[in-house]
Formats: sequence, C-alpha cells, structure tokens
Amino acid sequence: MTSLSSWRERVEVGAATLFRYTLSVQADPEEKKLVLVMVGLPARGKSFTARKLARYLTWLGYDTRVFNVGEYRRERFPGHQPHHFFDPGNRENLRMRDDLAEAALEDLLTWLVPDGDVAIYDATNTTRERRAFITKHCDEAGVSALFVENVCDDPEIIEENIRATKVGSPDYAGHDPDEAVEDFRKRILHYARAYEPVADDEGPYVRLIDAGRLVVMHDIEGFLPGRVVSFLMNLHYSSSPIWLTRHGESISNVQGKIGGDSDLAPRGHRYARSLAGYLIRGVSEFEEMRVWTSSLRRTIQTASVIELPSTQWRALDEIDAGLCDGMSYREIRAAMPDEYHARGENKFRYRYPRGESYQDVIQRLAPVIIEMERSRQPLLIVAHQAVVRLLYAYLMGIPPEQAPHLAIPLHTLIQLTPHAYGCHETRTPLAPPVPKQQPSS
Amino acid sequence: MTSLSSWRERVEVGAATLFRYTLSVQADPEEKKLVLVMVGLPARGKSFTARKLARYLTWLGYDTRVFNVGEYRRERFPGHQPHHFFDPGNRENLRMRDDLAEAALEDLLTWLVPDGDVAIYDATNTTRERRAFITKHCDEAGVSALFVENVCDDPEIIEENIRATKVGSPDYAGHDPDEAVEDFRKRILHYARAYEPVADDEGPYVRLIDAGRLVVMHDIEGFLPGRVVSFLMNLHYSSSPIWLTRHGESISNVQGKIGGDSDLAPRGHRYARSLAGYLIRGVSEFEEMRVWTSSLRRTIQTASVIELPSTQWRALDEIDAGLCDGMSYREIRAAMPDEYHARGENKFRYRYPRGESYQDVIQRLAPVIIEMERSRQPLLIVAHQAVVRLLYAYLMGIPPEQAPHLAIPLHTLIQLTPHAYGCHETRTPLAPPVPKQQPSS
Repeated sequence: MTSLSSWRERVEVGAATLFRYTLSVQADPEEKKLVLVMVGLPARGKSFTARKLARYLTWLGYDTRVFNVGEYRRERFPGHQPHHFFDPGNRENLRMRDDLAEAALEDLLTWLVPDGDVAIYDATNTTRERRAFITKHCDEAGVSALFVENVCDDPEIIEENIRATKVGSPDYAGHDPDEAVEDFRKRILHYARAYEPVADDEGPYVRLIDAGRLVVMHDIEGFLPGRVVSFLMNLHYSSSPIWLTRHGESISNVQGKIGGDSDLAPRGHRYARSLAGYLIRGVSEFEEMRVWTSSLRRTIQTASVIELPSTQWRALDEIDAGLCDGMSYREIRAAMPDEYHARGENKFRYRYPRGESYQDVIQRLAPVIIEMERSRQPLLIVAHQAVVRLLYAYLMGIPPEQAPHLAIPLHTLIQLTPHAYGCHETRTPLAPPVPKQQPSS
Repeated sequence: MTSLSSWRERVEVGAATLFRYTLSVQADPEEKKLVLVMVGLPARGKSFTARKLARYLTWLGYDTRVFNVGEYRRERFPGHQPHHFFDPGNRENLRMRDDLAEAALEDLLTWLVPDGDVAIYDATNTTRERRAFITKHCDEAGVSALFVENVCDDPEIIEENIRATKVGSPDYAGHDPDEAVEDFRKRILHYARAYEPVADDEGPYVRLIDAGRLVVMHDIEGFLPGRVVSFLMNLHYSSSPIWLTRHGESISNVQGKIGGDSDLAPRGHRYARSLAGYLIRGVSEFEEMRVWTSSLRRTIQTASVIELPSTQWRALDEIDAGLCDGMSYREIRAAMPDEYHARGENKFRYRYPRGESYQDVIQRLAPVIIEMERSRQPLLIVAHQAVVRLLYAYLMGIPPEQAPHLAIPLHTLIQLTPHAYGCHETRTPLAPPVPKQQPSS
C-alpha cells in the first residue's frame, strides 16, 4: 500500500537490508491493493455505496478513486439513450458497452497499480463472464478484487432510488420525470434478464440485501477488506441531519492556550444556553435527537443544559498537543521554534511532540464514524476544533489534508443534512458572538 | 446497561431532573441488555464461539456469563449418557431435557435482568419452537435476543471438534476415544433430524458457516450487537502461538521514571539481541512470524534487530500518564498525594490526570484484539507493561480488573499457545536479567 500516511524505510542491519514500515493508518504492510467491484442491477444503490466507501476510505488515508462506467458511456454517447440502447439483444451496442467497461477497467488499473490504494469499479457487472474478466485482469495486475453486491427487491426503495438519483441525472435532462422513471424501469429489465448473482466460487464478496437488512460475506480476509465490510454492515440510507458544534468559549480559549481541560468561560456558558434554546425552539427533530460530547469539561458543560440523552466519547477529545498542551502559540514559537515551523509546513501530518497529528485523530475517530453511519437518530456532536474539522471533512467529502485549514468558528451551529451523494449545509451563528480571532489549533 | 464501567448520574436542571451517562465503554445508554442465543448441531464450535465472545465482552467491560445447558444435564445426570439418551423419540428424556433447558434460561434471566450486561445461552436450540420459547421469555424480561448460529458441513472440521473438545469431556471420561467419537456422531444424528436453521422471521441473527468462511447477518442493529458481529466475522480457529514481551530496559526504566519516549538503555539493547537470537534459533514458526510494536522508540528499538516484517501501532503505546508523565512514583507521591492515593485505591479505574486509565487503554486496544483474532500468522507483540498486562488478561481469560496486578517482568518472553478453550503459557527469561525491581505502572 502506498497510502499517503505510510512510508517504507530501508534499514541496514549487519549484512542484511530489510524494510520497516511506519504506518499511521493501521494496515498490513504485505496487503495487496484492492479493487472493490460493485455488482447489481441499476437503482440498487451501487453508486451511493461506492461513493460512501470512497469518502470513508479517502478520509482514513487510502488513496481511493471511483471509476464509473456510466460516465464513460455518457462521454462517448452524450445525451439521452433510450432504454433499448441497453438491450443485450442489441449486439452492436453490447459490444460498444463492453468496450467502455474495458476502457474503464484499464484506466482503473493504470491508476491503481503505480499510484493508488483502492479503486472502486462502479458498473452493473451482473454476469459471471464479466466478473471473471475483471478478476483475471486484477490477478494479472497483482491486485485483489472484492465484489460488493447490492440486491434489492423492494419496489418502494427502487422507485425512491430512481427518483432521487436517476431522474435528475444527465441521462434524463429535460425529460418528464414519470416518463424517465418508466424508461429507466425498462432499462433495468434489460439487465435483469442476464443477471447472475455472485456465487461462492467467484471469490470474496459481500452482499447487501434490502439496504443492509441482510448481509452475506464470503471469504473476507485481510485488514482492509475487514474495514470495508465493517463499514458496509453499518451503512444505511438516512436523511437525519447531523449537527456539529465546538464547545462554548473556555477559559483556555480566553487565555489563548491550547489543550487543557478548563471550564467554560462566562461567554461559553451563555452559548450553552443559546444552543439549548435554539435546538428546542428551532429544530423539529428535537425529541429524537441524541447528544455526543467528548470527555472534556468544556464540551460536557456546553451540552449540559440540553435536556436530551447524552454520551461521552474519549474518541471525541481534542487533538492531544503533547508537550505543548497548556501553551499559547506565541510560547510554542519562542520555546520550540522547530516545532512551530514543522507544524506550519504540514499541519495535517504534524504530530505534536508526544501528542497527536490530525492523521492520528482520524484513526481514533473511525469508530465514531461507524456509529454515526449506524445511528438512525438525529445527532448533535459537541466537540473541539480539530475534531469538528475532521468530522466535517468526512461528511462533506473534503480531502482530510485540507481539514486543518477549515474555518470552524466558536459559537456556531453547523447543520448537515444528507442528500443523495453528499450533505446540505446550514450555519447558524448563535449568541454571544466571540469577538476576537481564536488561536488556530 | 449496568456495566462496571458505566454509571448514571442524576442532574438537576431547573425544574427538570435528567440522567446523564458517563461511559468509558462506548455504549448506547438506551440499549437493552442482550442474550446471545447459540444455535447449532453438536461439535459445530458453539462453545468455542461462546467462550471467545464471553472473554472478549468481559474484557471490554461488559458483565458477561455463559449458561451451558450441557452442564445442567451433567449435574442432574452425572456420568456418561449413551447417544440414545438424546433421541427425540425418547419422549420422557425429551421432557427432562426441556426442563433442564428451561431451568438454565430461568437462571440466565434471573442473573441478567438485575445484575448482568450480556448472557450467552449455550445450547443446541435447533428447533423453531425452542427459539420462539426463548424469544418470548427474553421479550417478557425486557432484554434483546440475538441468535448466533454455527453451521458446518465439513466432516474434517467436525471430526477435529469432536476429538478436541468432546472425547476428553466428562461425558466420555474413561471411554475409548474411537468409541466416544462413534457415540458422539450418533448423538449428532438425533439432533440433525429435528434441526431447523434460523429463518428471517425469527429475529436478528448471525450465521457463521464453515468456521466463518461465509457469514450471514440479518437485522443486526444496535451498538453492542454490532461489536459482537465485528468480532465474530474475524474469529477463526487458530493454533498459532502469540508471543508477548515488554520492550528492553529503557533509560526511563533505569531512572525510575514512568512514561516518556526514551531510548533503550545498554541492557535493553542486549535484550533486543537476545530476543532476536532466541526467536531465530528457538522458534520453528520464525519464518511466518509477524512483529507488532507500539509507536514508541523503546519497542521499535527492541524489535529492530529481528529480521521480520514489522508494523507500528499507536494503539499499543503505553498507558498515558498525563501530567505524571516523566515523573517517578516517589515524585508523584510527594507532589500529588491525592493522585497517588487514588491510584492505590483502584489501579484499574484510576485515570491519570489528563491521561488514561487501564479501562481507557482497553477501549483503544479493541481493534488490536480484532486484528489478533483475524491474523493467521504467529505474532510477536512488543509493547509496554500496562498494555502487555491487558493483552495477557484477554488471552488468558483473566478479569480485566486484575490486569494491573499481573507480574509482567522485563526481559521475559511470554509464549501463549491456544488450545480448545484457552492458552498454554511458557515464560522464557532472556539475558540480560534486570536485577532491581521495576516501578509498577
């Protein structure tokens, strides 16, 4: 794996040269690169699953890309193609579509082998023959293939998927929605005739049935496939919003010190009351909401006024500033100029002496993300600047390296509402505003 | 959940009284208590799975007990019962065996509802009727039931299971092994006639087929069921040993200081060489071994002489002593007498100011345990006193509260070799011995 957060170091020991791996991402240094091969009829949630997986793996530090065969088709045959374009009886189109699928696979392997960690091959791949072709090419390239099959026979979910993701797509631009649904249904039927579910002799697979109600895993081995499957088994289609906020202004904030476990300052207490008031008056989901805080006083105090069940997570604690904990940035610059400089060079990878880097925080946040995906209730997460930056980056699909530079001001409630492939954002500054610039941590 | 590591606190807010939960164990405060109901024919690995689950959940902080119906039978009908005792055609015995199963379930609920977190009901439970009976009683008691079904049709695995766990059991004490196998096969056939696999309409289940090659999960929801399933999907029957060692003596050890990230002292470097030499000469599995270290210098240096692939885990770092990091115990007693005293009172729950408790370390070690169970290669883990204590407690099934009091001396290699329901231990002190008593951390 050549992920951004791992590197290999040659070490000379006596006569022998050996390689040592330093991994921030937990990984097996001998593990092969991975192709996740989506399988399933149209409108079964393949692209949703592929994008969620890509977002999660990218956030964890794996260089991940989705190769969507539909996009190759749209590039080569722009505009609307009626359903009979997809009829497997239409020999010439079938060959052209095979060519497109092969071109996408070729591009995928050309990228993955030298540069990437994980590639996601987003196409229907509904026949044994097609999958055997993919497995053969992956074997030859020295990478592993894992099939991710989405099965759904619930007509309501399918109709919802078509309306949410297909009707508005470039394929149906300018078409009547009901006609588009009708045409898309016919397109599905062309695929359904030739559909062969993945069998045990085709290799490792995970099958998600009816949006994850039933999950079947076959021959899953290795660290990364295990992580993929743990994520998939918790994934579901939720439209519940997630609210993120930093704690109210703390005494350390007022003093310009980083880290610590101080109480809220008077303005911070006022924010806690504004926040509780806003939620109870302004949020229709208030009754079902759940609150997560870190284990530090300033987040617990911020949430303490809200009359909702609340859970403390140590995993939500602020980035550990190690030896710099309790210092101001000015003090760090004066006492440890090298550290101050190193942090400026790469704020994402920089690890405080005896403390953590943003990359380290991602690793400990991974279970929080799994819980977030699993939760069917609207969540309010009260945490800290670095942690909220990383959660926000995950939810908005922003590369984690950019997270340390995101503006997440104090006394501002961020509401993120999931839609088909991302989140809508609303920011609400609440009283009292914090006048001066906070130190960036 | 009333687990040892969670507590509920009444908070008065204005006119309202609400409850706040403080959890060290990550948990959903609203989650119900859980009964894991084993399902499967004899010799399919139910008791192995049940005990591994109990060990893992206990170690995570859930108060967990296994209720094994076979033990109830042996108590009531001591000595060998021939296979026809288990013939469902034998009406009177069937009723007696039903009574035993019901007595075990009653004891289970009588314990679980007021006191426990998770109960494991270890019996064949191979009929729908029996399972409906269990679900009904769980519902009435206000606890959740999750079926864990072990399916195996590989005659080799079954034969191995019978020889490993049944022939030596009290049921066959003093019998010829081959006759015992033959009798046990007939006992299985009695159950097989009435076996009905768990169906989707019976409730949530996880089915493990052929020792985990195929895993099926239905309707798994909730935090704790998710943890159970993540563990099960990685579980396999391994007989590879695990070697545990602390790093060689470090400069901080010599100075009597806790924490820090010092280099090895000269004696520590000599231990690193002894260890590498011992492994290459004394361990037949050397070629396949993999090495895990923490991210701290003293473990990396200890492993650096060993010519094997190595991975660094931050999760294996020593317990974080927070504000006490770099101090000696004498200094802590002088400067923070209250902390020193509190630690003496309860070394397991004690959390260093701004640092970690043993309980906290367990939470971050959980992914390491999952990886350990998943690994099919012999492992050498080079870590630190508190971490090795907790890993050792997990592997040996020692309650985690006792872990802080286990003797894990420096310069000693511990080999743990799994057998049916536990591990055999070999300790090898290696040169150079460390003469003086190390401070206990």
